[in-house]
Amino acid sequence: MDNDELSRTVKVVRSWLMEARDNVLRQIDSRLKVATKSSRSDLVTNIDRSNEQFIVNKIREFDSKAKILGEEGFGDQVTNSDGRVWIVDPIDGTMNFVKQRNHFAMMISLYINGDGVLGFIMDVMNNELLYGGPDFGVFLNSNQMTKANNLKLKDGLIGLSGPMVIHNDFNMQEIANTSLGMRVYGSAGIDMIAVLKGELVGYISYLKPWDFGAGRILAETIGLKITTIDGHQLGVLSSEPVLLATENAHHDILTIVKK
Amino acid sequence: MDNDELSRTVKVVRSWLMEARDNVLRQIDSRLKVATKSSRSDLVTNIDRSNEQFIVNKIREFDSKAKILGEEGFGDQVTNSDGRVWIVDPIDGTMNFVKQRNHFAMMISLYINGDGVLGFIMDVMNNELLYGGPDFGVFLNSNQMTKANNLKLKDGLIGLSGPMVIHNDFNMQEIANTSLGMRVYGSAGIDMIAVLKGELVGYISYLKPWDFGAGRILAETIGLKITTIDGHQLGVLSSEPVLLATENAHHDILTIVKK
Repeated sequence: MDNDELSRTVKVVRSWLMEARDNVLRQIDSRLKVATKSSRSDLVTNIDRSNEQFIVNKIREFDSKAKILGEEGFGDQVTNSDGRVWIVDPIDGTMNFVKQRNHFAMMISLYINGDGVLGFIMDVMNNELLYGGPDFGVFLNSNQMTKANNLKLKDGLIGLSGPMVIHNDFNMQEIANTSLGMRVYGSAGIDMIAVLKGELVGYISYLKPWDFGAGRILAETIGLKITTIDGHQLGVLSSEPVLLATENAHHDILTIVKK
Repeated sequence: MDNDELSRTVKVVRSWLMEARDNVLRQIDSRLKVATKSSRSDLVTNIDRSNEQFIVNKIREFDSKAKILGEEGFGDQVTNSDGRVWIVDPIDGTMNFVKQRNHFAMMISLYINGDGVLGFIMDVMNNELLYGGPDFGVFLNSNQMTKANNLKLKDGLIGLSGPMVIHNDFNMQEIANTSLGMRVYGSAGIDMIAVLKGELVGYISYLKPWDFGAGRILAETIGLKITTIDGHQLGVLSSEPVLLATENAHHDILTIVKK
């Protein structure tokens, strides 16, 4: 994608997200229709659905030949990462959205033949948008971000999945104890923003493609490392435990995971 | 305290907190001087100290005969809760302050002969101030808060201490599993604001008097329950595991703690 097309795409996607944010804020005090999916803590609301429909429609208008993978199923059946693939999470952290009306994100990313091109994560209530990609740089609202500070695990806070800590999956408790403290925010988007801003040295959770699609592109662009929990390359369509961290913390965590 | 004196005190303390916030924000990008206290995760910075000194000076000017209990020791040696006792936490969540420059609070409370009169919690980066007391009501910035929604543990998110979850103190893991999810924010002030706003049904952590002094007054005023982890009354000068929750969640949690 040339620079003009990148800039044009960034501008358009930002405008969708701002409009989507307005739509959500307008409905945020209304009674939600909440349904469970795989378990009592896996929720979807009427707003997740209407927001995905809104974003999918915008993508179809803008890029009619692309494939779209959306969490709530308004996109296509995407079985491989060939060609142009848009990935959409209309409300990431739906439990936070339902119970807190806070600490949730919207995420959009674009991959071409498996390569990350652009990622967008919006913290809706804080009105913070992180966006960019390898050929564009990463921006927080209008400010370009610099390379991530390469802290070790022992010198930072780590964002974790609550259930993974309780089950001690992959020695998660030793990872927490080695760090300066664990944090649990309950939204991949919000956790990834914290890692991108340097508030956390890393984040570990079971994730789906729409949970990490945008964050992966932004993270790699500013020198962070994102892989499967055992250090392998992450597929665009993977669903598995994901490890995002500074290079040093990534190494420290892998050592503990593999014990 | 009569209504005039209450209003006057609220006005004055709010002005201190706004000035203290400005002071902190002015220094927030400077290099901090960080020292450890009881462990590598128990920190104090030059800003904790200068901010406590600032607040203690303001209290001395305003209420010269009162006793002051401050986390960093600029107040008095307070050995009982007789008379007027001000309790000050200049930076609550110092680890978050140091590592995130975010998610920390300032807290001030006033007790008279052991009774909570006024409490103030400020989320510095979000510019949110919760304040009030039993004879004043509770306000979030300028909006009066209503009674807390009395959710059960199974219907809400719970704020926990990371170490207590890892050590499974008081069956903390079952408490987390019974709820809709655990969250770990790393600051008593930030966690208590979340409970007061209804974003969490409860919060459990080992706390010192300056960690719960303000939150206790606000919580009790809007119908939340705060006790020791085993359900006993909390002393003004207690240092122990504290349980703050809606009435229903408090009951649900005590049942699990006592198993």
